[in-house]
Amino acid sequence: MLKIKSSAQQKTTLPLRLARKTILNKYLKVRKFSLTLCRPLETEDYVIQSMPDVSPTKWHLAHTSWFFEAFLLSKANKKYKSIHPLYNYLFNSYYVLIGERFSRPDRGLLSRPTVKDVFNYRKYVDEYMIDFIENSSDENYEKYAFIIEIGLNHEQQHQELLLTDIKHVLSLNPFHPVYSKNIFKNSKKTAALKWIRFEEGIYEIGTNGKEFCYDNETPLHKDYLTSFYIASRLVTNQEYINFIEDGGYKRQEIWLSDGWATLEKENWSAPLYWQKINNKWYHFTLNGFRKVEPNEPVTHVSHYEADAFARWFGARLPTESEWEVASNKVKIKGNFVENRNFHPLAAEINSKELISQMFGDLWEWTQSAYLPYPGYKPLPGALGEYNGKFMSNQIVLKGGSCATSKTHIRNTYRNFFPPHSRWQFMGIRLAKDNK
Amino acid sequence: MLKIKSSAQQKTTLPLRLARKTILNKYLKVRKFSLTLCRPLETEDYVIQSMPDVSPTKWHLAHTSWFFEAFLLSKANKKYKSIHPLYNYLFNSYYVLIGERFSRPDRGLLSRPTVKDVFNYRKYVDEYMIDFIENSSDENYEKYAFIIEIGLNHEQQHQELLLTDIKHVLSLNPFHPVYSKNIFKNSKKTAALKWIRFEEGIYEIGTNGKEFCYDNETPLHKDYLTSFYIASRLVTNQEYINFIEDGGYKRQEIWLSDGWATLEKENWSAPLYWQKINNKWYHFTLNGFRKVEPNEPVTHVSHYEADAFARWFGARLPTESEWEVASNKVKIKGNFVENRNFHPLAAEINSKELISQMFGDLWEWTQSAYLPYPGYKPLPGALGEYNGKFMSNQIVLKGGSCATSKTHIRNTYRNFFPPHSRWQFMGIRLAKDNK
Amino acid sequence: MLKIKSSAQQKTTLPLRLARKTILNKYLKVRKFSLTLCRPLETEDYVIQSMPDVSPTKWHLAHTSWFFEAFLLSKANKKYKSIHPLYNYLFNSYYVLIGERFSRPDRGLLSRPTVKDVFNYRKYVDEYMIDFIENSSDENYEKYAFIIEIGLNHEQQHQELLLTDIKHVLSLNPFHPVYSKNIFKNSKKTAALKWIRFEEGIYEIGTNGKEFCYDNETPLHKDYLTSFYIASRLVTNQEYINFIEDGGYKRQEIWLSDGWATLEKENWSAPLYWQKINNKWYHFTLNGFRKVEPNEPVTHVSHYEADAFARWFGARLPTESEWEVASNKVKIKGNFVENRNFHPLAAEINSKELISQMFGDLWEWTQSAYLPYPGYKPLPGALGEYNGKFMSNQIVLKGGSCATSKTHIRNTYRNFFPPHSRWQFMGIRLAKDNK
Amino acid sequence: MLKIKSSAQQKTTLPLRLARKTILNKYLKVRKFSLTLCRPLETEDYVIQSMPDVSPTKWHLAHTSWFFEAFLLSKANKKYKSIHPLYNYLFNSYYVLIGERFSRPDRGLLSRPTVKDVFNYRKYVDEYMIDFIENSSDENYEKYAFIIEIGLNHEQQHQELLLTDIKHVLSLNPFHPVYSKNIFKNSKKTAALKWIRFEEGIYEIGTNGKEFCYDNETPLHKDYLTSFYIASRLVTNQEYINFIEDGGYKRQEIWLSDGWATLEKENWSAPLYWQKINNKWYHFTLNGFRKVEPNEPVTHVSHYEADAFARWFGARLPTESEWEVASNKVKIKGNFVENRNFHPLAAEINSKELISQMFGDLWEWTQSAYLPYPGYKPLPGALGEYNGKFMSNQIVLKGGSCATSKTHIRNTYRNFFPPHSRWQFMGIRLAKDNK
Repeated sequence: MLKIKSSAQQKTTLPLRLARKTILNKYLKVRKFSLTLCRPLETEDYVIQSMPDVSPTKWHLAHTSWFFEAFLLSKANKKYKSIHPLYNYLFNSYYVLIGERFSRPDRGLLSRPTVKDVFNYRKYVDEYMIDFIENSSDENYEKYAFIIEIGLNHEQQHQELLLTDIKHVLSLNPFHPVYSKNIFKNSKKTAALKWIRFEEGIYEIGTNGKEFCYDNETPLHKDYLTSFYIASRLVTNQEYINFIEDGGYKRQEIWLSDGWATLEKENWSAPLYWQKINNKWYHFTLNGFRKVEPNEPVTHVSHYEADAFARWFGARLPTESEWEVASNKVKIKGNFVENRNFHPLAAEINSKELISQMFGDLWEWTQSAYLPYPGYKPLPGALGEYNGKFMSNQIVLKGGSCATSKTHIRNTYRNFFPPHSRWQFMGIRLAKDNK
Repeated sequence: MLKIKSSAQQKTTLPLRLARKTILNKYLKVRKFSLTLCRPLETEDYVIQSMPDVSPTKWHLAHTSWFFEAFLLSKANKKYKSIHPLYNYLFNSYYVLIGERFSRPDRGLLSRPTVKDVFNYRKYVDEYMIDFIENSSDENYEKYAFIIEIGLNHEQQHQELLLTDIKHVLSLNPFHPVYSKNIFKNSKKTAALKWIRFEEGIYEIGTNGKEFCYDNETPLHKDYLTSFYIASRLVTNQEYINFIEDGGYKRQEIWLSDGWATLEKENWSAPLYWQKINNKWYHFTLNGFRKVEPNEPVTHVSHYEADAFARWFGARLPTESEWEVASNKVKIKGNFVENRNFHPLAAEINSKELISQMFGDLWEWTQSAYLPYPGYKPLPGALGEYNGKFMSNQIVLKGGSCATSKTHIRNTYRNFFPPHSRWQFMGIRLAKDNK
Repeated sequence: MLKIKSSAQQKTTLPLRLARKTILNKYLKVRKFSLTLCRPLETEDYVIQSMPDVSPTKWHLAHTSWFFEAFLLSKANKKYKSIHPLYNYLFNSYYVLIGERFSRPDRGLLSRPTVKDVFNYRKYVDEYMIDFIENSSDENYEKYAFIIEIGLNHEQQHQELLLTDIKHVLSLNPFHPVYSKNIFKNSKKTAALKWIRFEEGIYEIGTNGKEFCYDNETPLHKDYLTSFYIASRLVTNQEYINFIEDGGYKRQEIWLSDGWATLEKENWSAPLYWQKINNKWYHFTLNGFRKVEPNEPVTHVSHYEADAFARWFGARLPTESEWEVASNKVKIKGNFVENRNFHPLAAEINSKELISQMFGDLWEWTQSAYLPYPGYKPLPGALGEYNGKFMSNQIVLKGGSCATSKTHIRNTYRNFFPPHSRWQFMGIRLAKDNK
Repeated sequence: MLKIKSSAQQKTTLPLRLARKTILNKYLKVRKFSLTLCRPLETEDYVIQSMPDVSPTKWHLAHTSWFFEAFLLSKANKKYKSIHPLYNYLFNSYYVLIGERFSRPDRGLLSRPTVKDVFNYRKYVDEYMIDFIENSSDENYEKYAFIIEIGLNHEQQHQELLLTDIKHVLSLNPFHPVYSKNIFKNSKKTAALKWIRFEEGIYEIGTNGKEFCYDNETPLHKDYLTSFYIASRLVTNQEYINFIEDGGYKRQEIWLSDGWATLEKENWSAPLYWQKINNKWYHFTLNGFRKVEPNEPVTHVSHYEADAFARWFGARLPTESEWEVASNKVKIKGNFVENRNFHPLAAEINSKELISQMFGDLWEWTQSAYLPYPGYKPLPGALGEYNGKFMSNQIVLKGGSCATSKTHIRNTYRNFFPPHSRWQFMGIRLAKDNK
């Protein structure tokens, strides 16, 4: 028997019209958190671009301010003038319809504007934004409230990138700089891996956007799923070490063809940041260079590694619809950036949830390519470039990580990275057709 | 109202056990056709590898013979000995479980074995194969009949590649060698583009493999489709020229991000093989270098170009399920390699089919990534490498082309190429959410 | 009639034994000048590596200190301990015999040690060095005095690199940061180009090292020169603009084959840092972005451009022996870094010297490959790597530049760069076989 | 005491005016030898370009014919018409002044013209050339006689390249095709290495071109040499194996900086074509894949390897002037291509020559960069591109090899290749400052 089940959060709130005060508080909180994340850094740290995917910290700080300038202030406030005409050129990331941009892989070649200049720019934009939130006409406010919200979500995304980017930057430094002095205790045990079954049927996937969401999560639509099992927790370091020791990186037959080619080209033999010293595994973390703990979930693996691990294990990765259905009744709580662990934690042994670690800890690779939902329409104008144009050669990841804000994530949220990417907090949750 | 509709050909024939005679005839016919396709070539033509994707003609001829040797003769016939021990190394394409292989992009560096040696190798394999088909024990024959069939389908695939590869080789030659002297008349008119509607509902996709199929077409499974419209014919050269003249290759905003990067890197400004001379478009075809005919369907475009064209047109590409559903009642007839046109033809004006050009003419880009069907299981052993390991960064194409054998195609057939590929006979069929 | 002429400075001073006080003053002066050159910089400027050839400012500051540590302090002072054990790894440039080194093109990826750390390192080394110069035993002092001198010359070399590297870094910044506010007046006129003749014969080239010199300038040896003419001044911007306007960058036939290939690969159409705006030439200088002055000597040209210009002009570049002979009686004075112009000046009209601009202003490309003199012996140990191992694919340049210390240059000095290099202050002096 | 010594062959013959008959014989002989060298080849062998430096055999055969067409027939004979207008585009190597050329690294992509077409082209050109030599007016003949001679020398150069190129092509083939069935006996002994002294003084180098020579050998000029020693024979395989076994490829300190970078990039650990099997050295030769004979001279080493070997040995490479002086009284005889050994031979034990193997066997790397002689003037017109434009980043080699025609070599002959090249028959002769 087929039944229609809804995987979307069916809330009945009206379309978003947060009161000015609420949004002001949110604005101040999110903007401040960007600076909080920078507190452990030296001026020199803000400048480095350690690979083309990485942006310098000061670029993130400026770009997230530019976003408000480009999409709100320059349109809503006729008197607004940017601090410097070049900022629109330097801090536009990829919005073609906004104009020319500075070459992305060269962001690390710019010593000016200095860190101090960028902090001033943030302050300058903040003053105008606060004034807008407090004093703009109702009509103007109504018109741009959505941009404020998208701008704050955008900044939260960049807070995550800022963390993963600075992790990459610091990881290359032979001094192994410590970003956060939090110390984790070794979890002596972790929960056993169980398989949770979901029934065949038609499910509703995505959202109609009554609450804030990105365009790529819409529209709400039906998907037919065959019955499946999903793992009750993430794959652990110990399980991954078993894979390595069983020749996981040497057995071409368990790898996707492109995955093996990448392994050979990049000389992969372990997750990013792992290093074997005297026959023991260590890794660079934001909490310092330390031993790999067996019960923590494995992270900094590519889609290719996740896929090969799953095949070796006799399982597979979930599709994004499966993941969304499985997470449908799971509460959004867990190890988010607000906890300031900056690292995933072992699954709790006595969790009351059937499925643990769905939110926070690690982004979970699916087996789904990042493609438009049936009937998908991008936002009009330059904001339409936010998501749609990346629907090619990318894989969907779900659930957020220890570097994601709790207030930023939803179960319909679709993150995406190319299958070879490893520098985000990415992990592995397994699925199966039969138990 | 949701209804379950079957998109698979529901034939009731029993599992394939073609009588020995039937299969012998098929074997002889397919093997001979490979040689027929080579008739227009000079010895020197057989040697060239014009880009890493292309294999030399003599490699195709040898590899398709090796396939029978590796998967059948060397296992089923204890007395069988390869002509040369190195052939297993040279003519294995990508079967890791069979052993080491010669570097793919270096296939064009080998002058030996010569063309004559390769023809001898084919003859040698043929003799053993004919003997096997005629004289093997029933038990042995039953066991390997499937390999013969897969081997012949495999050879048909390589016949298509042989044609598209030699087209690429000859296209680089300033003499513009003519492969076939067939001359097409200019179609003065073509059918108008109409939109055919399909209803929302659950559809059956793929096949359970009662007839011969590849593993990637299985299992038969349900998919939920939103209602959609599909175009009644392929996009024509004239429509594509309109796109070019409207700045199609200059408007970054209609391209996928990866597509635009490829366009810039490869300097694309028209389909592969097109050249503008005195303000008129010409292209290299297997029938010679000639004017681009407005009513012929546009070919040698990448997925990126197809996608950008569709966006420019206000439409989109179909998903592979949509294509399969739309083709469900379309007869498999059309412009296949058996016609020896080696080029797509304009859609007939008074076709009796609602939808024309679905089979033959051109492979049609879908918007679907090439991924496993729910419950997909690869074949056991080395043949499991045939399809599964390529399920990454590839796009599904449907329907066959003017270089495909009519006996090779099905509506469940899933071809796949990376989105930047252009050297196959690829074309564009549009789809839409609303009329 | 052939005569032997000496081109070396025949001084009769005894081998170098500078009194401690003299060398201390020199040490303090040279070390301080490195910091003086950094005064216009922001912290962020110190970090950037704008291309593999460029090192970050902070690396130069640390490396020149490491030189004293590695070649003197760690050997002469048993109590000496480096500030950090990793510094020997990070700040060794290319001395294989000293140990492993950090990858050169990745110097710009290191935010730590910070600029402040590096300044502390300099202070730390300075304290030990001052103590050594003042208080070491006579025996120890005698043994290492040469290292002090080579270390200071080494630091002067890096002061020049620091300037040309930071020029490159700042040039990429769209803000066009101004390093020095010195303003030059436009020289309304410059001296006419005259040809100075030198006679055929045997000349002495190089030096026996009675005064401080590098090993590559030894030994003094004889060279037979055919008579030649050398230009009385450097080629000017106006002369170079004439070359550009006469199709200099479009006429393949006047270029060396490798030069043309480089021009095509790098898209050269003018000297480095030049930009045409509204049909007028501008260039980035350490004094800001400004118009190209016609009478100033052209700079930031590669050997390939110098060679093509010379051929276009109907002349050639001098050999290094010719240059050395021509400079033999020219006094070492001119536009050096001590003047803090950081840019070459137009040749004076009424210079009393027959040949002007031989020293200072610009390094002058010769046509000579950088090769060992007959009987050349590198220094023993790691210092033998200073010069000898670069004698391949490099061209000799002579005379120093506006970024060179006056106290650093000699007429036997052999600078060398690959023929495609342009980021040093390089210019063109012509020579001829016949007037 | 300085003395002027002449290193040039002081012949008193008048400028070259070979009688028509003599030149006709030479023409026929040289042209025929190109075909003789091709006799062991299969059609497929003619097509392959195994690396950018290599040209397909059929390209060599066509290009050497084009040379006569472009520089003589098309100018001297108004009725002459090329077989195909595209040939001028396809078979021009690098003569900019003659017109556009087909991309060099793509020569291996052309199957047409076929080998048969190229043979026809040769015949066609031959007929016109023979007619020209026999029947042209005296005036015309006088005018172009030099071109005939340069064309035949040009063809001899390409005969050498044809051999070394086909050696490279065949070496990549796992079948190890045998080009020539000549078998060498293992030389049980070779001559001991002795050091021959030459005195300090002024020497004459180069030639004034009374006999046929290339422009780069002129003009005759004086060079001052310090006394030196030169080795009595080439370095042997055994001596080179000693170098390898002593860590020659692992000791960075004996390598030029660029040499070490090349070694690392190319993964060099032995000469080109060498392979270690069961702890014994084998190499691919034109006579088959066989053991490395200890007494044969080592070949297929780059300048970098030759230089590192010399430094390891405590010696150095000779300058080109030293080599020329040393060879001055050595007779031009030895192991040339006419012997059809296609491989160097061990030095004879009882040679009557003081210095053996100077001519033939192997081109000998000097330490001299390939630069113009004082007063050098390239030939006028397109022939001026023959040599001059390559005077950058190349090293001079002297003496010819087992693939050189005896009638092609002189002691003033300047061959040149980039320092990383290994695919020519290159070897090592040592020199020293003191015994």
